[in-house]
Amino acid sequence: MPVVVQKYGGTSVADPERITRVADRIRETREKGNDVVVVVSAMGHTTDELLELAAQVSDNPPRRELDMLLSTGERISMALLAMALEARGVPAVSYTGSQAGVLTNSMHGEARITKITGERVRQSLEEGKVVIVAGFQGVDPVTKEITTLGRGGSDATAVALAASLGADHVEIYTDVDGVYTADPRIVPVAQKLDELGFDEMLEMAASGAGVLMTRSVEIGRRYDLPIHVRSSFHDGEGTWVRDSEVMEQAIVSGIAHDRSEVRFTVSGVPNRPGIAARLFGALADARIVVDTIVQNIAHDGTADISFTVPKAAVAEAERITKEVGDELGATVELDHGIGKVSIIGAGMKSQPGVAALMFRTLAGLGIDIEMISTSTIRITCVIRADRIDEAVAALHEAFGLQDGPNRQEGES
Amino acid sequence: MPVVVQKYGGTSVADPERITRVADRIRETREKGNDVVVVVSAMGHTTDELLELAAQVSDNPPRRELDMLLSTGERISMALLAMALEARGVPAVSYTGSQAGVLTNSMHGEARITKITGERVRQSLEEGKVVIVAGFQGVDPVTKEITTLGRGGSDATAVALAASLGADHVEIYTDVDGVYTADPRIVPVAQKLDELGFDEMLEMAASGAGVLMTRSVEIGRRYDLPIHVRSSFHDGEGTWVRDSEVMEQAIVSGIAHDRSEVRFTVSGVPNRPGIAARLFGALADARIVVDTIVQNIAHDGTADISFTVPKAAVAEAERITKEVGDELGATVELDHGIGKVSIIGAGMKSQPGVAALMFRTLAGLGIDIEMISTSTIRITCVIRADRIDEAVAALHEAFGLQDGPNRQEGES
Repeated sequence: MPVVVQKYGGTSVADPERITRVADRIRETREKGNDVVVVVSAMGHTTDELLELAAQVSDNPPRRELDMLLSTGERISMALLAMALEARGVPAVSYTGSQAGVLTNSMHGEARITKITGERVRQSLEEGKVVIVAGFQGVDPVTKEITTLGRGGSDATAVALAASLGADHVEIYTDVDGVYTADPRIVPVAQKLDELGFDEMLEMAASGAGVLMTRSVEIGRRYDLPIHVRSSFHDGEGTWVRDSEVMEQAIVSGIAHDRSEVRFTVSGVPNRPGIAARLFGALADARIVVDTIVQNIAHDGTADISFTVPKAAVAEAERITKEVGDELGATVELDHGIGKVSIIGAGMKSQPGVAALMFRTLAGLGIDIEMISTSTIRITCVIRADRIDEAVAALHEAFGLQDGPNRQEGES
Repeated sequence: MPVVVQKYGGTSVADPERITRVADRIRETREKGNDVVVVVSAMGHTTDELLELAAQVSDNPPRRELDMLLSTGERISMALLAMALEARGVPAVSYTGSQAGVLTNSMHGEARITKITGERVRQSLEEGKVVIVAGFQGVDPVTKEITTLGRGGSDATAVALAASLGADHVEIYTDVDGVYTADPRIVPVAQKLDELGFDEMLEMAASGAGVLMTRSVEIGRRYDLPIHVRSSFHDGEGTWVRDSEVMEQAIVSGIAHDRSEVRFTVSGVPNRPGIAARLFGALADARIVVDTIVQNIAHDGTADISFTVPKAAVAEAERITKEVGDELGATVELDHGIGKVSIIGAGMKSQPGVAALMFRTLAGLGIDIEMISTSTIRITCVIRADRIDEAVAALHEAFGLQDGPNRQEGES
């Protein structure tokens, strides 16, 4: 029997009533002749509530104990979902990450999946059961410690599990219909994308599109496993993330934006080799992800280095950057008012006019572009955060995305 | 270093503030030069809340999935307590029942502890850490399934763990000061007992004294491990449950009562061998604990069999008893208005006048004794539930317990 792997997020299992709706959907999938494996997140705001309890007993809880605490959230929803299925006459069994054989490294709070053994999952499927697996968690096989996978961990579990079980594809159920050409809250005419390549989805995710995190897309790309992002509230098709050989590549598939970063500027840095390595090495050692780096040489021979950092990591990044800045006699400034707007499209690399149209569109709105970074299929501009909405809307229109992904030649 | 095993119940860890108070107490115990192992229950009403969620998705949740669900409660409190200790500079680590090596049989929901390996517990103690173990749960080593231990399971975990670690004694922290000569809510002059034998505590527990469940006392008796029942809200001594060779045995140590049972009467049973076995065998197969059995032969040669059953098991007991009753052409009646009052004392076996004083005291109040059952150190009378309070108070006075356990000779 074909194996279907489904993942339901926190809003999809937020209360007993929604859990029973999810159970109905699983039953339907099974009645169509599929083996079904389900990965669940914690109910609604459970994880936040557990974090709040932890904050009340400790200012700096050990990450190992945080993992012990947080891993209970998914175990509650998995057991409830298994009960709801059994109540409908569907044989079901729930497994923790550890029981399902989700093996990880030892990085508590942000563990990486190293392997999925899935023995008990396979055995229960053979016995005709629906298997429910707790997302977001695994076990370090060396220390036997329970780990959590950090942001996007449940999606990553689902995609990795689907790959290990040889599933045709994986279904990620969420509270939106799929991936859009831009955030529909900002651009009401934004179109749902029927299909998107892995690289495009990666750039969208890295540029602020919140539907999927990069890590699950990376696993999907590595195993060439199509990911179907769809709504848990209706049956309509969502967005397929997959590499399609025959498909004409879109020049611009979507506009992404991000207001979750802060810009650091280190001014008056001596212009000699190794300075950037010293700074970014220290930040990397603290596992801080730095994005959009720009370095300028000033007239006096010193350099200015600017980069952006996620808001969650600002306190630690500030401490480290000021430490390095003091060593170098440089000054450090933070700018909390920035935002990023990006255009993404696999076909952009062969279309030289795309960047020009983006810059001209922003200029037409009187928006200053403060930093630029590009990949072969993405162009990102750092602008003021309060201009993000109009920039996204104007770019969406300029690239004609109200009619779906732009497959025409860009202006040259 | 001596090992102290402490158990904290749900009210003792009901919220973050109480958890930090428990952490302070553990730190003090450690600073006195002890290795400390702590067993915790779920916070406050967590278990009831999880059961309520289960009831909302299923009328009859599989016991295996209930265990998956309920075992999360203690995992939350153990992780929070470990965090609170670390926040005080006390190195600590939490372990699930499975990680601590609490091995059980496979009876989900009421599993029995078969062995405690405790390898990781010992290793962490050697590393100088306080070890927090989730109560109420274990793992079946054959199926690798998570089990819960049912009522009194956290106490049982603590006592068994203390025995396996070779601790001098185990401390059970609760919301009362210890074991009393009677329920202080009914008898304001009731005295806290300084000491009580294992057999007496077993009879007290079986007769309705709610402080300790019989299963933990049984483990304590088997390993001759003293149990110190004490308050988590102050430092005073509680009640020591242990066998004391030198101690003069009290004739009556305490009065227990129980309003949690229902009486079944099966009338018109053919008086031939094997009938009682048929009935009580069927109840035992359903794991229903039957108490206080009385059988009378009527003038017509048929028999009446009466027995009491805990209220929680009434529905199933009624189904089974009526099934057997139908087979036998007997009628089944239920009486929800009964209560039990018991006097317990290790010295009673050598004092013939104790029963007489009990019966005369009840008669003096005009209370009908409907059933009687005895052991060598206990006499139990079934009476109307609404007469329980006055019976307990009068017996407490008749045996002079306001001055502590009665060590004088009873009236002969």
